[in-house]
Amino acid sequence: MLPSLTPFFEPASVAIIGASKNPAKLSNGIVKNMLSNGYKGNIFPINPKEELILGIKCFPSITSVNDRVDLAVIILPANSIHEVIKECGEKGVKAVTVISGGFKEVGKDGSELEKEIITLVKKYHMRMIGPNCVGTMNLTTGLNTTFIRGVPSIGGIGFISQSGAVCGGVVDHVAKQGIGFSHLLSLGNEADVSETDMIEYLAGDKNTTVIAAYIEGIQDGQRFIQVGREVTRSKPVVVLKAGRSAEGAKAVSSHTGSLAGSYDAYKAAFTQGGYFEVHTTKDLLNCAMALDWIKPPEGNRAVIVTNSGGPAALASDSFSDHGIILAELNEETKKSLAEKLNPAAQVDNPVDMLGGAAEDEYAHALEFALADENVDMALAVLVPQSLVDPVKIAQAIIEAAQRSDKPVIACLMGHESVQQAREILHANKIPMIDFPTQSGVMFHALIAHRDNKLRHKESGRGLTQLGTSMVNDLLSAHPNLKFWGEHLTRDVLKTYGLPIVEGRLAKTIPEAIESAQELGYPVVIKGASNDILHKSDARAVAVNIKDSNQLERSYREIMDNMQRVNSKAVIDGLLIEKMAPEGKEVIIGMKRDPSFGPLIMFGIGGIFVELFKDVAFRIAPLTPAIIHQMIESTKAYQLLNGWRGEPAYDIQAIEDALMRLSQLVIENPAISEIEINPLRVLPRGDGALVLDCRMILE
Amino acid sequence: MLPSLTPFFEPASVAIIGASKNPAKLSNGIVKNMLSNGYKGNIFPINPKEELILGIKCFPSITSVNDRVDLAVIILPANSIHEVIKECGEKGVKAVTVISGGFKEVGKDGSELEKEIITLVKKYHMRMIGPNCVGTMNLTTGLNTTFIRGVPSIGGIGFISQSGAVCGGVVDHVAKQGIGFSHLLSLGNEADVSETDMIEYLAGDKNTTVIAAYIEGIQDGQRFIQVGREVTRSKPVVVLKAGRSAEGAKAVSSHTGSLAGSYDAYKAAFTQGGYFEVHTTKDLLNCAMALDWIKPPEGNRAVIVTNSGGPAALASDSFSDHGIILAELNEETKKSLAEKLNPAAQVDNPVDMLGGAAEDEYAHALEFALADENVDMALAVLVPQSLVDPVKIAQAIIEAAQRSDKPVIACLMGHESVQQAREILHANKIPMIDFPTQSGVMFHALIAHRDNKLRHKESGRGLTQLGTSMVNDLLSAHPNLKFWGEHLTRDVLKTYGLPIVEGRLAKTIPEAIESAQELGYPVVIKGASNDILHKSDARAVAVNIKDSNQLERSYREIMDNMQRVNSKAVIDGLLIEKMAPEGKEVIIGMKRDPSFGPLIMFGIGGIFVELFKDVAFRIAPLTPAIIHQMIESTKAYQLLNGWRGEPAYDIQAIEDALMRLSQLVIENPAISEIEINPLRVLPRGDGALVLDCRMILE
Repeated sequence: MLPSLTPFFEPASVAIIGASKNPAKLSNGIVKNMLSNGYKGNIFPINPKEELILGIKCFPSITSVNDRVDLAVIILPANSIHEVIKECGEKGVKAVTVISGGFKEVGKDGSELEKEIITLVKKYHMRMIGPNCVGTMNLTTGLNTTFIRGVPSIGGIGFISQSGAVCGGVVDHVAKQGIGFSHLLSLGNEADVSETDMIEYLAGDKNTTVIAAYIEGIQDGQRFIQVGREVTRSKPVVVLKAGRSAEGAKAVSSHTGSLAGSYDAYKAAFTQGGYFEVHTTKDLLNCAMALDWIKPPEGNRAVIVTNSGGPAALASDSFSDHGIILAELNEETKKSLAEKLNPAAQVDNPVDMLGGAAEDEYAHALEFALADENVDMALAVLVPQSLVDPVKIAQAIIEAAQRSDKPVIACLMGHESVQQAREILHANKIPMIDFPTQSGVMFHALIAHRDNKLRHKESGRGLTQLGTSMVNDLLSAHPNLKFWGEHLTRDVLKTYGLPIVEGRLAKTIPEAIESAQELGYPVVIKGASNDILHKSDARAVAVNIKDSNQLERSYREIMDNMQRVNSKAVIDGLLIEKMAPEGKEVIIGMKRDPSFGPLIMFGIGGIFVELFKDVAFRIAPLTPAIIHQMIESTKAYQLLNGWRGEPAYDIQAIEDALMRLSQLVIENPAISEIEINPLRVLPRGDGALVLDCRMILE
Repeated sequence: MLPSLTPFFEPASVAIIGASKNPAKLSNGIVKNMLSNGYKGNIFPINPKEELILGIKCFPSITSVNDRVDLAVIILPANSIHEVIKECGEKGVKAVTVISGGFKEVGKDGSELEKEIITLVKKYHMRMIGPNCVGTMNLTTGLNTTFIRGVPSIGGIGFISQSGAVCGGVVDHVAKQGIGFSHLLSLGNEADVSETDMIEYLAGDKNTTVIAAYIEGIQDGQRFIQVGREVTRSKPVVVLKAGRSAEGAKAVSSHTGSLAGSYDAYKAAFTQGGYFEVHTTKDLLNCAMALDWIKPPEGNRAVIVTNSGGPAALASDSFSDHGIILAELNEETKKSLAEKLNPAAQVDNPVDMLGGAAEDEYAHALEFALADENVDMALAVLVPQSLVDPVKIAQAIIEAAQRSDKPVIACLMGHESVQQAREILHANKIPMIDFPTQSGVMFHALIAHRDNKLRHKESGRGLTQLGTSMVNDLLSAHPNLKFWGEHLTRDVLKTYGLPIVEGRLAKTIPEAIESAQELGYPVVIKGASNDILHKSDARAVAVNIKDSNQLERSYREIMDNMQRVNSKAVIDGLLIEKMAPEGKEVIIGMKRDPSFGPLIMFGIGGIFVELFKDVAFRIAPLTPAIIHQMIESTKAYQLLNGWRGEPAYDIQAIEDALMRLSQLVIENPAISEIEINPLRVLPRGDGALVLDCRMILE
């Protein structure tokens, strides 16, 4: 719960600054909406040129209102807003919603203006929604500060949208569908109040059972994950992210000026935060409807009861896409089904009652199918037939659903002929869809919610005995160095206990020979220069050096090669490393995402990463559970785990390395990129070794 | 064109056998539909108990009709249909549509009945649609033999569905949407007339511009591919396949008794036939609408003109999923756009005119955006705003689209408030959708159609000088052998010129030594037994044998190992093969699909096939173009083509091997499976070698 947001949704009084008498103006629409939805508080239109607007008294300025004002809705040209916000602050207003555009979304000048007003808002300890938004609705109190035409039904969906247009589109789309909302709000530029704030607020709102969010860009990425992880254990949050693709991100960033971030980071954040992601507006609404009205199933086994096989097949395909399987009905169920259905009916799953099936057959089939212990949920499908009344079928579905505690979704195909059936189903909180292909994602959302509820609260993370101060010393030794080669990065990683292959930096041939003798032949030697990070390309690596003669020869060659590649390179010497035992090579790394912070990558090296993009991303700080799931989510994971007679590799050592990497990058924000490539993983029990690494500082 | 199907759609007279007076009966609905849609031919209801039905004369039997009857629609209990069909045949009826169920879909007895009536139909040289269907509509002539309530608008979409229910659902769904159909027909069990027949028929129908098909199972797979390949060069065909997943296939096969076939075979057939596959009913209708009304774009660069950024981002994501890119507008276009749009508008692509944009701004933006040479097509997006009239925006879109020869799709979000705009847009043949996420697949369908039109007719395929008769001799030498080991399969492959590694079958140690000397050491030896096909598992392979001593020792070991694995195995000797040079290993193989025939597989060996399922399937006969595209469609293809400094391998040799395999399996239907694993591909120019193979006969 965020009490500072309450005045936006439960204000005792609202001022509309810039209210107009002209019905063609949006600001007139706001006054109209405030008056016509049952809002019980005081309404103060503010406009120095008017006496009355829509029959209520108008004030010349907010300071001239004698009463207390909780919320001010501002719709005035951008350049006059600074002054008005100041007046609001002085008046003791707690919350302002700025509808007007002309800020960050129009470029540099607008950005400046936006920064100025947000400074002012903070100075007066106010909160602000917008600018560049269409306002908010609290359906249960009748508060409506938008100029959107129409309001949806009242229900449990809290709908959040960065885009006001998407809010308006949704209101229009759900008209007459009976899908119910608790709140509907647009956040615009999110100069102050963000999606994450709203998720936190709606999590504590008793009228909201599910949160649905249309997201373009997240600014407070780390908090977004933490809030999600907390909220989704009890209340589901469905998200639709626009700008998944490079093309889409371009569209988003060009219009709101928000940084879209990389979709890999968003996917990781959704997974870690327990958010359920969908890809279309329709799925967003359908999943929210299902989560609002029906409780999650106990398992993933669904039964289909239908009057036609074709749609059942389409539904099954959709199930399969979402990890839902067709339940195996037990023999008794089949016998009971056969008793009343058409003798030619299919009494296996899908239960196909054939075209003529009427309401009593639906009632019978659903009753017995839902009672089967192998069934966790049901989809009832009707293709309208001329002799069957969809309304009666809807009633049969409602009755069966109400007698069972398993979730039921209805799919009545068609449009015109099933409208009345939809109204009845929705009035009884049974979600109805038009096409069977929409069902899989809805059941999936319910199952994901159940899994979230079962998720254990994770205990404290982080390792002890790791020293930030030592890293600080290392970093400050090279204050202006951006690209850090292996020979320097090794020391940083070592501080956090990462398993670096044994090695020495040698500045001369005798030093190199001495180091090699200490390490024991064979050794690997590599040129050490922060100016030459791609050592193999520069032919600055020699492996399996067996004696001092070979070492000396290779030393000279590498020095020559490095000179040739970059004659200005500062060469710090040569790195002499022990030859590592055979193993499997993996890549781990980190890149700091502007919205979410440290995005950590894991993948099995070589073509798996390069050709198949078989990599997993998560956002630090990582926990053991997240790391475990991260590694398992790659396809190549099986190659580590005893693939076809190969040895099993030390996955525990990878997990440990990822945990240490996570803590290193969390505690040292100056590091903007790290790559450990390869981390050679040895057979189980033997650990892993960092064979090469580099990093980039801010 | 299939003239034998014309009587179904342009009959001069129709008998409805089993017509009823009772308005609660489906057969009454058929008479009503026949009467009320403008059909101009004669209608003869047949029912021995009635004189008049719905005011027209009823006949006791079809033989009592004095006039000629072209089409008979039969709706009677299954067991009485045999007799009626006989009467139809004797009467000279050309086409029968059997609505009644109770045939193949109900099990064995029904299957028998179905076989009997189809024999009769063929005897009288009639054609039959059904049984177990809901009949057909020809919208342009008013013929309507269905009992579906309502008819859609007239237009260019020929809609084919195996499922009658899906037909009915579609009619209901498109009511009042203005999407137009030429034909709408359900095929039921397809005892005679199949989807392929209908595609061929509609290809020749001048009122049909696009064919849309809902498919459960295809029986005549090879013809389906050939017809598609021919038809789609001029007329697009969009398909929705139910039963893609194992779950979905189960649903299909349980209800119609049709064999769903493996989805890999379907995907191959759609690719080879030029069919455009979609995954939802909504996409099927939307793509058909777009293909009916607008011509394909010249390229894949789209512009979005919108009054809101959020939906534009969602559209862009959808573009990206379908290979469509956002056009780079040229500078002059941007200048022209800026002239009339809101100064804060985004004049880059997406062109975001901001919330207040009115019709003149849409007109202006679309005109200049469509005129840009970098733009191939446009999506116009409107999120309804309280001060903007959707109808006027629709008119602006229509005018701009009509002045340009580039395709335009409109996305007016919402439902209630945009209904009138939809009517106007559709009346002017501009496709309108509700959600931006629907746009990508539609543009993709248009582009795929353009590509199909540009596709060259492929010249004759097939190799000469390959001998079926030689294979016949080889096969008949082992008449009862089902599993063929490498030593026998080699000879079969050799006949078709596949590059078998050099080798000899030896029955004794002296023979083996002699063979090895002829081949030259080192050699590989393998146990030769049709009873032990997994030679490595049985430790019946030894590689890199360098001399006769080693050979003798390995020979004895392999013999012992084989005895131990299967003491009853008939051992034909040992195969002595030359050691092959280094290369890349690929798998090629064939499995005969019950619907489509020889399904040929290609993949790069090892984990690529086993872990990543990175394999491609096509249906033989293959052509050089198909083979080329098949190999390129795997991700691992790059590994053959000079990956990161590795040599480029002899892809031409793989293509040649696939071509020979294709011809072998086409010409020798007794072979039901072949696997060549590995085919070792040598560096470019050096060819490839079959290192192991086996096959299974019927």
